[in-house]
Amino acid sequence: MTLEADLTPERVFDQGGPTLADTGEQALLRALTDIARTSPATLAIGSGDDAAVWSPMPGRDLAVSQDALVEGVDFRRWWITPRRLGARALTVALSDLAGMGATPVWCSATLCAPPETGFDDVLEIQRGLCAAAIAAGCAVAGGDVSAIDGPLVIDIVVGGTLVPGAVLRRDGGHPGDVVVVTGALGRAAAGLRLLLDGGELSEQEQAWVDAQLSPVARIAEGLQLVSSGVRCGGDISDGLLIELERISDMSRCGAEIWLDRLPVEPALVSDFGSAWPDLAVGGGEDFELVATLPREGLAGLLASWPSTLAPLTVVGCLREGSGVAVLDREGGASLPPPRTTSRHFS
Amino acid sequence: MTLEADLTPERVFDQGGPTLADTGEQALLRALTDIARTSPATLAIGSGDDAAVWSPMPGRDLAVSQDALVEGVDFRRWWITPRRLGARALTVALSDLAGMGATPVWCSATLCAPPETGFDDVLEIQRGLCAAAIAAGCAVAGGDVSAIDGPLVIDIVVGGTLVPGAVLRRDGGHPGDVVVVTGALGRAAAGLRLLLDGGELSEQEQAWVDAQLSPVARIAEGLQLVSSGVRCGGDISDGLLIELERISDMSRCGAEIWLDRLPVEPALVSDFGSAWPDLAVGGGEDFELVATLPREGLAGLLASWPSTLAPLTVVGCLREGSGVAVLDREGGASLPPPRTTSRHFS
Repeated sequence: MTLEADLTPERVFDQGGPTLADTGEQALLRALTDIARTSPATLAIGSGDDAAVWSPMPGRDLAVSQDALVEGVDFRRWWITPRRLGARALTVALSDLAGMGATPVWCSATLCAPPETGFDDVLEIQRGLCAAAIAAGCAVAGGDVSAIDGPLVIDIVVGGTLVPGAVLRRDGGHPGDVVVVTGALGRAAAGLRLLLDGGELSEQEQAWVDAQLSPVARIAEGLQLVSSGVRCGGDISDGLLIELERISDMSRCGAEIWLDRLPVEPALVSDFGSAWPDLAVGGGEDFELVATLPREGLAGLLASWPSTLAPLTVVGCLREGSGVAVLDREGGASLPPPRTTSRHFS
Repeated sequence: MTLEADLTPERVFDQGGPTLADTGEQALLRALTDIARTSPATLAIGSGDDAAVWSPMPGRDLAVSQDALVEGVDFRRWWITPRRLGARALTVALSDLAGMGATPVWCSATLCAPPETGFDDVLEIQRGLCAAAIAAGCAVAGGDVSAIDGPLVIDIVVGGTLVPGAVLRRDGGHPGDVVVVTGALGRAAAGLRLLLDGGELSEQEQAWVDAQLSPVARIAEGLQLVSSGVRCGGDISDGLLIELERISDMSRCGAEIWLDRLPVEPALVSDFGSAWPDLAVGGGEDFELVATLPREGLAGLLASWPSTLAPLTVVGCLREGSGVAVLDREGGASLPPPRTTSRHFS
């Protein structure tokens, strides 16, 4: 492993230089492979062959997940640099492994770009992806490039390992479980609103924009949850409400969210007023984790939770029935559901 | 496993009915997951969670590859049905596993589609993908869906297993090796030309179009090659010339292609005249395999080759030096290289 990729100065999109049409597919593949080779050498056959090959650890199960970022839907070129975009694309996919309690091993990326895209822009995307892969200890196994008469598409696949059975499943919850989340909620959704609105940003607002552009995958937190015996959970990519709907559906029960318990920055409440639950419950892309566990396990989990990890907060419970109710507090009144912000097909 | 997916009548694109904008992301994900569940149940956790999970076979290495089809680059809606498109997308990716000599185990798909896409069109793509997965014995592990303001994108990841070391690598060739290919070359490229030209098709021409639209992944042939001790090869997705350039580059030697030995249908030569080498050497997407092996192993390989598989043909050799020369025959004159037809960035 070298840090060569990190020494190239970062650039913003569309700053000129040769395009993909100028350099062609073969030169692009060679340059992408050269960058991929700076990632951890955990593969038997890495980038450059028909497929990547590796030897699984004996006694480990394998996890795989796939996640796409599409220009105009998930990002716009003027609000993110190509290097941050590459890192973000991988982080979004790694978050799914975190949501299983898995350890990342490899990743692979398809990039669709119009021929007029800057060659250096694409290399910057790959450098960002590689930097994030190095940080997560996972190899860049290869992927595909294609021309497209349309927006940039970055589709990432990640593979990881887990101890058989020691996994956070969506169908592992039971009525009576408490619901916990990692970190703080609503920051990335606040950042997205600010990006869409445009305009000058305060220091606080810039921090929310950074939460949107450079999220963190809660890999260590997922591992800590499964090693503590937690067996139900996932990552909050589409917002707490939608993820808890999936968990309660697949666990065949209902759920409650207690608004007064949500880990939300006071500035978010003061800046966004009554809209803050839309961000913290309906808004996604914080990439925090949600998990459920029997109430009697909670004290032990919290007592053994390392202070170096994102903190855990109890935000609700699973219950008999179906659907997710949003209450002002435990045992309190039911509120209209916050607005969710899926960006797809609506 | 059920055959439910196969009983739905096939439809062509854009025949009306609800769009993705009408039905929304959650209904789409549920319907896609329902279809995915008709695929082989080889996974511990299948479609519907953050990630798919499976237990690797002890003593097997794992192979993974990724391949995207982009509307307007790889296909047009008016020349293929959505069901054939789904099957083709998976087959193209499976061909990379064939090119390693690997056995398919799982696949995963990202679909980017504009909101005005027909809901039933997307389900048809998934049905075609599932039918091809069932035929290959591999599970549909999940994937992602996204809106896009642009063309359809189907990005497939496939995972397989292989016996450690028993793999077709691009860097496994040596000067003096003979070069063999499976099946016949140039048919899919002929079909592509006919599709781009439009017009009425003869029965022969329709067969070439079918070769383009419904290719076959040479999985069994790849397995037979590695079990016969062959250790160098790949699939011919971008044409024999480009694949042999990759193999000779990575094996640090040169190569020769002997035109008179190529397995080409006589009708292809008579219909396309002097352009037939552009199709058979420069044209891709037949998804046949190419392999190299020491000349002394050839007789044994051919003698033990099952008649149920696509036949093997010797088409050239590796030699000292670099680059791929196209000769009229073994020991003959060097010809100008046929035109290659990469569809990307040029």
